[in-house]
Amino acid sequence: MRQAVMYAPGDVRVEQRDKPTIQHPTDAVIRVSAACVCGSDLWPYRGIQQLDGATPMGHEYVGIVEEVGSEVTTIRPGQFVVGSFMASDNTCEICRAGYQSRCIHVEPVGAGGAQAEFLRVPLADGTLVATPTLPAEDLIPSLLAASDVLGTGWFGAVAAEAGPGKTVVVVGDGAVGLLAVLAAKQLGAERIIAMSRHADRQKLALGFGATDIVTERGDEGVAKIKDMTGGYGAHSVIEAVGTQESMMQAIRSTRAGGHVGYVGVAHGVELPGLELFFAEVHLLGGPAPVRRFLPDLIDLILNREIDPGQVFDLELSLDDAAEGYRAMDERRAVKALLKP
Amino acid sequence: MRQAVMYAPGDVRVEQRDKPTIQHPTDAVIRVSAACVCGSDLWPYRGIQQLDGATPMGHEYVGIVEEVGSEVTTIRPGQFVVGSFMASDNTCEICRAGYQSRCIHVEPVGAGGAQAEFLRVPLADGTLVATPTLPAEDLIPSLLAASDVLGTGWFGAVAAEAGPGKTVVVVGDGAVGLLAVLAAKQLGAERIIAMSRHADRQKLALGFGATDIVTERGDEGVAKIKDMTGGYGAHSVIEAVGTQESMMQAIRSTRAGGHVGYVGVAHGVELPGLELFFAEVHLLGGPAPVRRFLPDLIDLILNREIDPGQVFDLELSLDDAAEGYRAMDERRAVKALLKP
Repeated sequence: MRQAVMYAPGDVRVEQRDKPTIQHPTDAVIRVSAACVCGSDLWPYRGIQQLDGATPMGHEYVGIVEEVGSEVTTIRPGQFVVGSFMASDNTCEICRAGYQSRCIHVEPVGAGGAQAEFLRVPLADGTLVATPTLPAEDLIPSLLAASDVLGTGWFGAVAAEAGPGKTVVVVGDGAVGLLAVLAAKQLGAERIIAMSRHADRQKLALGFGATDIVTERGDEGVAKIKDMTGGYGAHSVIEAVGTQESMMQAIRSTRAGGHVGYVGVAHGVELPGLELFFAEVHLLGGPAPVRRFLPDLIDLILNREIDPGQVFDLELSLDDAAEGYRAMDERRAVKALLKP
Repeated sequence: MRQAVMYAPGDVRVEQRDKPTIQHPTDAVIRVSAACVCGSDLWPYRGIQQLDGATPMGHEYVGIVEEVGSEVTTIRPGQFVVGSFMASDNTCEICRAGYQSRCIHVEPVGAGGAQAEFLRVPLADGTLVATPTLPAEDLIPSLLAASDVLGTGWFGAVAAEAGPGKTVVVVGDGAVGLLAVLAAKQLGAERIIAMSRHADRQKLALGFGATDIVTERGDEGVAKIKDMTGGYGAHSVIEAVGTQESMMQAIRSTRAGGHVGYVGVAHGVELPGLELFFAEVHLLGGPAPVRRFLPDLIDLILNREIDPGQVFDLELSLDDAAEGYRAMDERRAVKALLKP
């Protein structure tokens, strides 16, 4: 089968690899209908995160089940499925509390690489959610978004306790930040401030429900948010970048007693304890437990109540994966969808 | 009047100072019935925190109202009052959300020094809570505890979401940690694990409701907590020390999706962003909004349902304040009560 492999920063190739097989009786193998390039794939692409040799890439996927292991009971061949980037048993205490991305048996689904024709998904019963019937072709981008960026933005908004009466700030205008805007809107937030300085992303943010755009960053961005919130700061702030500057901007934009939901994978972040103590904000973040939200997100998409697939502004054949990386790296695209 | 003043690390003197007066129409002046030495007073006493010249000490107090400013409407001379160490208007958005310690008009009550015969309390209506009648003498230590250590331990337990069905860990066996045990018990926690290696404090913890004692610290302490919780970690962990080691011990003892409530004033703490990301725990901490809890805590004390005053194992005349500091510094006492 064909598969995208990263050899070094800036060097992504599509090559022939063996089709994955069932390795454990709880596995499924799916034929990938669509995959995509994640903002987090850019960390190794840019050389900021070390690669451990040639690495199959991709952890976002939707597809048709080809084969299941002998212990898989709820997922069947022929079903269209959406799954999280983290495989989870969905039965342990952590999963039952809604933190499937930290399941006691967690495995990264992306280890095999989802930017490929086929993908092995561990713990299939716990990880995959099947749609009732095969979805319409035009819904595939939105269902693909649910597997990570929508689920992650949604978790950020839930962690930040976005909801009625709340002023919500979103730091970061990548696909996750933009979909955090959509999530905050769906959760009923009163005011949604997107921090962005790119016209195309501002437009998407406004379409998803942002009520205000702030172009300032860092201390100036914080001052602007304070100005807009009677000096208090926002109730809810979603951090969707993962740098020291973005984390501090998020924490400092939040009122005392408010909530920060952080979903940008932290790179070089150190939080100063004393400032955090006197900030007195709730912090919750980490790899999003997408599986918690998948059933509801799939319903919203199938009912055409939300259209998160709009974040894909570039669609390519899997064979052109390298161009997808380039376009996102150069910020020519928000997010690239790959068709195997 | 007599007042305790810290001149340098290890140098506390009781001397004659002017009696405080009403400075703003929202002030009250109270005659202090009892004050005490706080664990946080030991940071400058030990030279870890810089002193800015000779400093009046103390921020925990109960007393009788002597005089009120012209704009004070609910507090009256002659009332017995308990107040928080942070003055708050109790009307701003932050106060109404329950974060009075971060009130938009917040002032530290201890600026004037509560280890004294008299104390000026700013924002008296928002800060002070009066008892219905003069309380029995034997309840005074417990009411004094409510003004900080009980309120702070309680906030830690609430921030950690201690409650029915929860396994709660308390890191730190000072007065705040011990009263966090009491709070977790009152909040209905199923299992309360106190981390302590001092026999006298273990005994107090067990009396307050601890079900288990763990003497290990650091990585060994974390491993022990994991062992005791089926490998998951505790649901709720209260951090009541404020060092790097204690914060990391608290975070690492918490299961994914669990809650850390941290109330030890951070000293030299830096939280590693990537570890925090993958820990995926809720964090909330800071100066406790004691005012939120005071009415309920006072009721529990007056009804003799809780006896937090047990943390005072040394009672001295204000004149002997220096001995109170020495005894706590040398860990001969958990907490010293000072009678003006």
